[in-house]
Amino acid sequence: MEAPEPIMDVAHLGHVELLTPKPEASVRFFAEVMGMTISGRRGDSVFLRGWDDYERFSLQVTAAKTSGLGHAAFRTRSRQALDRRLAALRADGVEVTAQEDNMGHGTGWRFRDPDGHQVELYWDTEWYEAPAERRPALRNQAERYPARGVNVRRLDHYNCLGAELRGLRAFYERNLGLRCTERIEMDDGTEAGMWLTATNKSYDVAFAREASGVGGRLHHVTFALDSREAILQAADVFLDAGVAIENGPHKHAIQQTFFLYVYEPGGNRIELAHAGARLVLAPDWKTITWTQAERARGQAWGLQLTESFRTYATPPLPDGTR
Amino acid sequence: MEAPEPIMDVAHLGHVELLTPKPEASVRFFAEVMGMTISGRRGDSVFLRGWDDYERFSLQVTAAKTSGLGHAAFRTRSRQALDRRLAALRADGVEVTAQEDNMGHGTGWRFRDPDGHQVELYWDTEWYEAPAERRPALRNQAERYPARGVNVRRLDHYNCLGAELRGLRAFYERNLGLRCTERIEMDDGTEAGMWLTATNKSYDVAFAREASGVGGRLHHVTFALDSREAILQAADVFLDAGVAIENGPHKHAIQQTFFLYVYEPGGNRIELAHAGARLVLAPDWKTITWTQAERARGQAWGLQLTESFRTYATPPLPDGTR
Amino acid sequence: MEAPEPIMDVAHLGHVELLTPKPEASVRFFAEVMGMTISGRRGDSVFLRGWDDYERFSLQVTAAKTSGLGHAAFRTRSRQALDRRLAALRADGVEVTAQEDNMGHGTGWRFRDPDGHQVELYWDTEWYEAPAERRPALRNQAERYPARGVNVRRLDHYNCLGAELRGLRAFYERNLGLRCTERIEMDDGTEAGMWLTATNKSYDVAFAREASGVGGRLHHVTFALDSREAILQAADVFLDAGVAIENGPHKHAIQQTFFLYVYEPGGNRIELAHAGARLVLAPDWKTITWTQAERARGQAWGLQLTESFRTYATPPLPDGTR
Amino acid sequence: MEAPEPIMDVAHLGHVELLTPKPEASVRFFAEVMGMTISGRRGDSVFLRGWDDYERFSLQVTAAKTSGLGHAAFRTRSRQALDRRLAALRADGVEVTAQEDNMGHGTGWRFRDPDGHQVELYWDTEWYEAPAERRPALRNQAERYPARGVNVRRLDHYNCLGAELRGLRAFYERNLGLRCTERIEMDDGTEAGMWLTATNKSYDVAFAREASGVGGRLHHVTFALDSREAILQAADVFLDAGVAIENGPHKHAIQQTFFLYVYEPGGNRIELAHAGARLVLAPDWKTITWTQAERARGQAWGLQLTESFRTYATPPLPDGTR
Repeated sequence: MEAPEPIMDVAHLGHVELLTPKPEASVRFFAEVMGMTISGRRGDSVFLRGWDDYERFSLQVTAAKTSGLGHAAFRTRSRQALDRRLAALRADGVEVTAQEDNMGHGTGWRFRDPDGHQVELYWDTEWYEAPAERRPALRNQAERYPARGVNVRRLDHYNCLGAELRGLRAFYERNLGLRCTERIEMDDGTEAGMWLTATNKSYDVAFAREASGVGGRLHHVTFALDSREAILQAADVFLDAGVAIENGPHKHAIQQTFFLYVYEPGGNRIELAHAGARLVLAPDWKTITWTQAERARGQAWGLQLTESFRTYATPPLPDGTR
Repeated sequence: MEAPEPIMDVAHLGHVELLTPKPEASVRFFAEVMGMTISGRRGDSVFLRGWDDYERFSLQVTAAKTSGLGHAAFRTRSRQALDRRLAALRADGVEVTAQEDNMGHGTGWRFRDPDGHQVELYWDTEWYEAPAERRPALRNQAERYPARGVNVRRLDHYNCLGAELRGLRAFYERNLGLRCTERIEMDDGTEAGMWLTATNKSYDVAFAREASGVGGRLHHVTFALDSREAILQAADVFLDAGVAIENGPHKHAIQQTFFLYVYEPGGNRIELAHAGARLVLAPDWKTITWTQAERARGQAWGLQLTESFRTYATPPLPDGTR
Repeated sequence: MEAPEPIMDVAHLGHVELLTPKPEASVRFFAEVMGMTISGRRGDSVFLRGWDDYERFSLQVTAAKTSGLGHAAFRTRSRQALDRRLAALRADGVEVTAQEDNMGHGTGWRFRDPDGHQVELYWDTEWYEAPAERRPALRNQAERYPARGVNVRRLDHYNCLGAELRGLRAFYERNLGLRCTERIEMDDGTEAGMWLTATNKSYDVAFAREASGVGGRLHHVTFALDSREAILQAADVFLDAGVAIENGPHKHAIQQTFFLYVYEPGGNRIELAHAGARLVLAPDWKTITWTQAERARGQAWGLQLTESFRTYATPPLPDGTR
Repeated sequence: MEAPEPIMDVAHLGHVELLTPKPEASVRFFAEVMGMTISGRRGDSVFLRGWDDYERFSLQVTAAKTSGLGHAAFRTRSRQALDRRLAALRADGVEVTAQEDNMGHGTGWRFRDPDGHQVELYWDTEWYEAPAERRPALRNQAERYPARGVNVRRLDHYNCLGAELRGLRAFYERNLGLRCTERIEMDDGTEAGMWLTATNKSYDVAFAREASGVGGRLHHVTFALDSREAILQAADVFLDAGVAIENGPHKHAIQQTFFLYVYEPGGNRIELAHAGARLVLAPDWKTITWTQAERARGQAWGLQLTESFRTYATPPLPDGTR
């Protein structure tokens, strides 16, 4: 029997919304230290973008009582692809609601995954038009290179916690058509992590296992820099700016991403990453499964991640425990 | 009226076959200077691969009377996708022939594009299994990093000449579903260059205008290195190895690729390239059209390419003129 | 007979003074595009520094009717070393005058080399004390990394024209104790270029042959960046900022410096350079002499420098010819 | 009263001799994984070099019952400088013995520092002449870039343990004229580390405090690579080659060196380092003193070095304790 065809309806991660109890400090961090451009403000939200993001924005920072993920939005490959995904979600018993009057894009169709994270699908979008002073010399680039702070290039992916990853993975596979490129399976058979891709990036969203009973939490949001050297330089910028570095720079064994983790002032973990020339080109990529023993060896070159990396997520747990 | 949906049937460029009148020297160049692995030999051909290519091979070097492109092969996204593309080609009046008994992959369906280049589509493939001494420490990598020569990571794209690019572009769009990300249009309305992509790479195949009346010629084949620093280092390796550098290292304005061009011993032009974190994520990317005046400005930082870059291709013209 | 001992009295190049007919634009270029810090203003001069320069300043920008080199200043290794160099100069018949009341350093002892360039020696200096907001996290660094523009690290060297290089070289060798690491000798026996070092840097000052009869002209002033990747990034910053790139990025065959040349608004040529881990450690380094034929081959990877590189210097010739 | 003039008699670290109980494996490590060239064999020793070392060799690997430092050798700036240093040592009551018939250099004058490390001074040396197949394209380079393994450029420095660092520092200052660029002073006033330089490199030899009563032990020997990217790449090469990475890649707060520590098969710790464009140019550099509290913060970006880094040295302690 022939294998089913891959679903190619989700084109890419479009934007994430971060909640922050310190909105001014968070926005200042993303604009000044991360080198992102403020491209809109509405209500409690400020919208920002990296210089290579083609849409109006890729990051929405929203004032809130606590930190965490507001929502994450994927752009579909076409209007028809959007319709197919909405039909699939509804057939799967998922409640989908239309969010109108959005900054920078058309109707956003929102739903919650089984763990409670809010996800959005949309098709119509606004291409970013740089004002004269931010217009780049080369027309195949969305915006001038900022030459400020760490010079975020574009949104790369986000990483959430989930209580039950097997079911969550099946949810994203059948409803969004995402494919699992790598995963962690513990000795007891439970799944401890998974990395899902829409197309050629080796992942667009990832999940790690949630130890508490709380759902819908965020582990981190990741922005792409243009080289490993840029990430090393970013570490110095963070050091001088008083931004706490949690882990890295180092190389993940999983996905081989060169990484650096910090906290933005609102408490959300932010990753800067570079993947070199790595792409997942095989349409039938064989999922890599890492064992508990392999994970115990640490990252690619031996670094053991901090305890906080395994325990801290946003929003923090109500009782202060991790 | 709704726009038609993008065709996602071609997954990626799988391999290219280079013809060479100096097969031993060419193979030695790719193995020793380029740092590729020989993964097969059959008849007049030697098969090689970069350490991140997941298939058995990405380069076939074939002894021949002259240089040039033997064929270029694209892997489809599924067996059904392959069938759709073959049906489209036949409906378009293209003769397609089955090539059996191939090294490393199943039936190759071959045809000629309107300019005479031989193109192949295939689905079944053999995943590379590294022998023990070439097995990498990280299982999400096809092969150990060679630490030899310039350490080619993977095949990236190829670039051909074509007499009439508008028709050629339409051919690849309607039959293979490739999309044009950037192009050059001269003041007289003719098309002087085009870059076509299957998915997120900003291009998998490109064409420049052929000035002579000869069809089916190759401009260059490109391999990806892992950083711009690696390309600078490669230039030193070529210098010491006596490999003639034609152009670069420098940055193309078009596609912003960081490039380096050399000639392999058989006379074919080879490019090493790095794209940083650049991806074409927009499913409806708006083709960038460069004008004649913009092209006259040279490459991104001002370099004017050598005259040979505009005139030399393989095979060379029969009368020795360019 | 034993070879004479090397003279180690000059420690390093301390600063250069650039003349500019467009002082505001020049200062804005160095502060905003080059990412240097303004650390003083006096009279017609603005004083700037890179983040790793330990003294008050390394660049003095002075309003003038034309462009060119005001003076170049070397710091001696000790007060006694200064006295020895002044005695040597006077014994050589060179007129030395004391310049008092200097920004950032003690008495400057000025003289003209045989070609008319004004050179200064000094010992007492002011160590830069960063204001609170520019104080770095690591105390072994003079100033916070700017994360702005191209992030000049420190002054590296300067390059002048000279009518008669053999005599000029002997002048710097016997009076300042500089050593010639590399030179160009033409087929007719004349010297076309020379590179002189005080200590472990492969050069602190260089000279190329002046074709016109005018003396005292400047070819370029060079600032060090921290990696080759930083120089590639700088090229993009210049491109977006509308700063004309004259040559590079590329690698010089001579000294193997990775280079990028631009013009500052006042017309002076500015180089950004990175030397990797290259140092001249041998105290008896054997001068490398390049032939006319070797020079004709172009730079390390084959680039032919622009005609302007051989003809343009500051101030421009009075009659507008080059 | 005028400060005494700096002593400039030691030019640079010339070579180190490593003892190894596994000579074949050690030599294979340096030749194949580190990419060094074997340039001589005599008795129990194999002599190796990096491609930018100008002398015959920079590393002597000697078969022995245990690991550790055989000796470290500094080349003086002149023959007269050598005589002055020998006179100073003898006046200081140090026994100096002549070692004749040396591979690659003239008489080596050997002595032991107060902690028992064997140090050598020499002046006459043999410049490396590359055989035809190792001759580089550019004549200002000692040897062709190997394009093999991690491509060690040159010897950089070595780091020893010492029981009493204050006295040891004074010994090197008054007898060799080395200068202390950075040091660690604990809350109890003891000195826990010091970094000494001969010229513009920020250090050529360093010492950390020995906790055991054993003298003359080695902490590590360091080789310079050409970029931070090269060090990241080296980490991957080590990973695939099964070479244990102890610490890094990361950036030291002290001296800001970008580092990577591994063990060679004989048990000696080897560092790969890159210093960017950092040089100590000030002839009167003000020693940076780090406090106990500052050291407790870890490395520049927060990494805490492994316990082994504080306890392991070669030769290991006789009783197996650390």
